[in-house]
Amino acid sequence: MVVVGVPGVGKTTVVDKIVAALPKAKLVTFGTVMFEEAQARRWAKDRDQMRKMPVEKQKRLQKLAASKIARMKDPVVLVDTHLFIRTSEGLWPGLPFEVVRAMKPTHLVLVEALPEEILKRRAADSTRSRDSLTTDGMVAELELGRSFLSVSATLTGAPMLIVTNREGRAEEVAESIASMLRSVAR
Amino acid sequence: MVVVGVPGVGKTTVVDKIVAALPKAKLVTFGTVMFEEAQARRWAKDRDQMRKMPVEKQKRLQKLAASKIARMKDPVVLVDTHLFIRTSEGLWPGLPFEVVRAMKPTHLVLVEALPEEILKRRAADSTRSRDSLTTDGMVAELELGRSFLSVSATLTGAPMLIVTNREGRAEEVAESIASMLRSVAR
Amino acid sequence: MVVVGVPGVGKTTVVDKIVAALPKAKLVTFGTVMFEEAQARRWAKDRDQMRKMPVEKQKRLQKLAASKIARMKDPVVLVDTHLFIRTSEGLWPGLPFEVVRAMKPTHLVLVEALPEEILKRRAADSTRSRDSLTTDGMVAELELGRSFLSVSATLTGAPMLIVTNREGRAEEVAESIASMLRSVAR
Repeated sequence: MVVVGVPGVGKTTVVDKIVAALPKAKLVTFGTVMFEEAQARRWAKDRDQMRKMPVEKQKRLQKLAASKIARMKDPVVLVDTHLFIRTSEGLWPGLPFEVVRAMKPTHLVLVEALPEEILKRRAADSTRSRDSLTTDGMVAELELGRSFLSVSATLTGAPMLIVTNREGRAEEVAESIASMLRSVAR
Repeated sequence: MVVVGVPGVGKTTVVDKIVAALPKAKLVTFGTVMFEEAQARRWAKDRDQMRKMPVEKQKRLQKLAASKIARMKDPVVLVDTHLFIRTSEGLWPGLPFEVVRAMKPTHLVLVEALPEEILKRRAADSTRSRDSLTTDGMVAELELGRSFLSVSATLTGAPMLIVTNREGRAEEVAESIASMLRSVAR
Repeated sequence: MVVVGVPGVGKTTVVDKIVAALPKAKLVTFGTVMFEEAQARRWAKDRDQMRKMPVEKQKRLQKLAASKIARMKDPVVLVDTHLFIRTSEGLWPGLPFEVVRAMKPTHLVLVEALPEEILKRRAADSTRSRDSLTTDGMVAELELGRSFLSVSATLTGAPMLIVTNREGRAEEVAESIASMLRSVAR
């Protein structure tokens, strides 16, 4: 299962709670798997070096990481990643064609939140340099997320679930996803 | 030609009227072709058995049905299907990559209706267990339909037509599509 | 880099200004490359003949043009094209799967403008037969553009940049894109 969501929706909290509710679930952060693959090939010693690698090499790493995840045998693999990453060149797709096809996710989950709550969380988070957006911009970003999600669903054939993580309700959201995963696990 | 639309837009009515207006058109319900393929392979005796088949086998059936449709020689083949199906696991794509590419539709038609009219029709339809949505939820569902449609158009290179089926205007909508099909038929 | 935008956003103005700001940039109009490929194969003598070619042959031309563009060695290649073209059959995708994958764009840029400004420009442009749309229809068309853009980004792995070309600000928009291209050129 792949869990995505724009910064500020509280994705990490939800993901952690799903993992806590499912003893057999393995949590995988896509960027970390990419870095492990880079280290194993001696392409990068630290994450900063990885980020400065040529685009083509980064794309190869993305695909290697996706294939590694597809081979994992755990009953439930939860992949924490991004649908897109905002940079000065525009939005980089986090799950491009080759990557999402190699990863073969069983389920796609998009965590959303109310635009105002996302903006509040972003404003409060001084540790990351997050873009300051208006509410309109935030609505547009959420809509782009849904567009990207429907592309990933079509390319993989996996079902896509959109959940709203309202302030103080992460537990509830996580439990609904965990219970869905329990019911489909044979 | 593939005709899609979320439940409650009046798709079946429109499709029936198009077929009535085009003597050489063959109407094909995607789920029915899937079931015929399942029966021919002795994979399922009834539709309920088919629905309970493992996901991987259902995906193979979808692709077999799509290939069968692509081989049909009728001057106009009208495929009645869904862009997505709402389940407890989320929205399952009705036209995933392999399926839509194997089907090779000449045209994609998305039937829409006003959110309020869709909700009214869904509320009146007690024979199916249809989700109760708010107007906002309905608008969001229509937008997802458009996202999925643009993915299918890109993957197949087929043109996509979005029509609004206003209450009492199904005849008009059907005739505009039938007349378009007549004009492109050589 | 591929630059797209619905009619009336002022795409041509922006593209011309980017090219003027980047001495090493080559401007390529997709339709022109298609026509050159058609002429070279003696498939068409003029553009009108090309437009009347069977759909399958037009699709082959699109792919040939895309491959030719992918082989261009110029430091920056700017492709001016459409995400979709409005016809009586519906919206034809301008960057279908095979075409966008063959083209391998490094960047995708979508030029947008305020719905009211687009409508004003379309109304003033009597040389082209442009559809008369309402503001709601215009908003919907811009949203479809974003859906198609996210499909192209996913299929190519290229970053996508959405810029708003406000009345009288084309220079500014062009300069921001030119400066981005300068910064990524190694």
